[in-house]
Amino acid sequence: MIDERWRRTAEILVNYSTSVRSGERVLIVMVEPETFPLAAAVYEAAIRAGGLPHVQFASAYLERALMRHGTEAQVGWVPEPELNAIHWADVYIGLRGARNPHEFAGVPADVIAAHRRAMGVVSRARTERTRWVLVRVPNEAFAQQAGMALDETMAFFFRAVLRDWAEEARTYERIRERFQRAHTVHITGRGTDLTFSTVGRTYVVGDGRHNMPDGEIYTAPVDDSLEGVVTFEFPGIYAGVRIPDIRLVFERGRVVSAAASANADLLARILDTDAGARRVGEFGVGLNFGIDRFTGDVLFDEKIGGTVHLALGRAYAECGGTNDSAVHWDIVKDLRVEGTISLDGEKVFEDGGYRF
Amino acid sequence: MIDERWRRTAEILVNYSTSVRSGERVLIVMVEPETFPLAAAVYEAAIRAGGLPHVQFASAYLERALMRHGTEAQVGWVPEPELNAIHWADVYIGLRGARNPHEFAGVPADVIAAHRRAMGVVSRARTERTRWVLVRVPNEAFAQQAGMALDETMAFFFRAVLRDWAEEARTYERIRERFQRAHTVHITGRGTDLTFSTVGRTYVVGDGRHNMPDGEIYTAPVDDSLEGVVTFEFPGIYAGVRIPDIRLVFERGRVVSAAASANADLLARILDTDAGARRVGEFGVGLNFGIDRFTGDVLFDEKIGGTVHLALGRAYAECGGTNDSAVHWDIVKDLRVEGTISLDGEKVFEDGGYRF
Repeated sequence: MIDERWRRTAEILVNYSTSVRSGERVLIVMVEPETFPLAAAVYEAAIRAGGLPHVQFASAYLERALMRHGTEAQVGWVPEPELNAIHWADVYIGLRGARNPHEFAGVPADVIAAHRRAMGVVSRARTERTRWVLVRVPNEAFAQQAGMALDETMAFFFRAVLRDWAEEARTYERIRERFQRAHTVHITGRGTDLTFSTVGRTYVVGDGRHNMPDGEIYTAPVDDSLEGVVTFEFPGIYAGVRIPDIRLVFERGRVVSAAASANADLLARILDTDAGARRVGEFGVGLNFGIDRFTGDVLFDEKIGGTVHLALGRAYAECGGTNDSAVHWDIVKDLRVEGTISLDGEKVFEDGGYRF
Repeated sequence: MIDERWRRTAEILVNYSTSVRSGERVLIVMVEPETFPLAAAVYEAAIRAGGLPHVQFASAYLERALMRHGTEAQVGWVPEPELNAIHWADVYIGLRGARNPHEFAGVPADVIAAHRRAMGVVSRARTERTRWVLVRVPNEAFAQQAGMALDETMAFFFRAVLRDWAEEARTYERIRERFQRAHTVHITGRGTDLTFSTVGRTYVVGDGRHNMPDGEIYTAPVDDSLEGVVTFEFPGIYAGVRIPDIRLVFERGRVVSAAASANADLLARILDTDAGARRVGEFGVGLNFGIDRFTGDVLFDEKIGGTVHLALGRAYAECGGTNDSAVHWDIVKDLRVEGTISLDGEKVFEDGGYRF
């Protein structure tokens, strides 16, 4: 029996996120066997919408087997059936489960890179040729990382996902327009007084059509405009390692001083990756008030309503940014207890809520 | 962690059943999420053999959703990605799990038939275009049907599968040659004295290259040659219903009298399906001595070493049979405690074993 909440999630993915129409081809990618209940619900919703669904399987365990036992040719092979399926599909619904986040441990970096290049061909085809949405499907491994019980985790997930997305999208768009009109952003809070410009840059809205859950607007700040200091309530997580209490000082867009209460050496190494790693490629604003706690999974954390996030490194082209660092590392700041956002001097966020 | 026995099963499927060679494309079809451990093992074995594997997913739950909620066009649709994948593949390895054998219950027969027609296109492409093998993967549902504990079920499965198949194949071939040379078969046993001719017919060997587990030889008896009586120790199972203690009397190849200790009315209805249903389309000999008990799954039961089976109805073309009944219903007779097989008057099976 499929949980009614999976059915409602599936309805959102099929009828809102990707708007499947009669006769359309729907590729459902089931990552790890545990996502089967949602895969079955999405399949049924696609059938009910008149679609022609097909389920494909993927798993980090298979990727590990490929990378550990494959030759260079096998690892570098672009999987034709996956590419063919994307060329066939009008809609792509990716159900991303994860049993263990460390399945690539011990695999040489160049082998991982070769595998990622091959899979990148598939990802690019997906984004270019299909209406796509990706879902991060939680399970015990997610609960373990988040420090929550499993039932609590699932209730948390469904609070984040089972929203009136048409209504959410209207709210996000209103907020996006207000940010888009502004020239400067000023953020205050615990250990924080940071300003930057977004002139000439574009705010993009994440309203559940590509990610689920979703709920953010984001842009690329003008590269050399950041001035001041920011302290992050939530740890930065880099390749699985937590860096708590990060404090960054900016001068003309560059991090000139960085501190953390642990793993400060890793923080320093990240900043030294390349020139772009010391600059901010993304400024994002979390808008999903159904997500109310830190989990350690940035796809959720960056959407917490009442937070902002900065990414060191690479900018998104659609925002008009030019930072092309190898790094893109999101760190989330909580403004709910203490903090304000002002646009061109007008406070738009205060006391945990938006003022317009 | 993948059970070592799944790894050994995977080795057999990849290196014996389908002989995957370097650069070959291997389509692995994972039916139901529970077959994942074997799918992962097969994937890894295919990688190690130099192959290019791809995993596809299928499930009776998806088929049910399609049949219950799909339009005629959706149900009749030949799933293009599955067909494309078969056209792509050199080798097909089907891992057939089943959570519940009754998932088609309540679906109208014409809808099931339309679905089967569409899937038949895929099956035909598989048999025509790939080197294929199908595995019946047991689980709790299988254990429930067989009346065994789960660990006992798995041990049973691996005893049936983890054999020296090159050696088994040589033994089967020797037995096949002896049967092929004979003109008449005479079977005796409890309530049994049956003779028939196989002149002009071909015995085919099942040696693990298309089914796993495997272990049988089979042919199509000359249609009007069966004379005598046969009593079956194991129940016939038709669409999930058990018909115990079946006794059939043959005259000139036709069943002229049929009895059973229960569900005799169903037995009568099966025999009345069409003209061919009253005649035997297949005579098979179970040769896998690793399968030592009745399970209720005919794919295992018909291979029990020391049994024979008769199928009422349709014959296999490769055996030279012509019976084209809509029925093909296998019933298994146990010769291990009491029974003999004679070929042209020479006893070749007696006291539970072959004599040559």
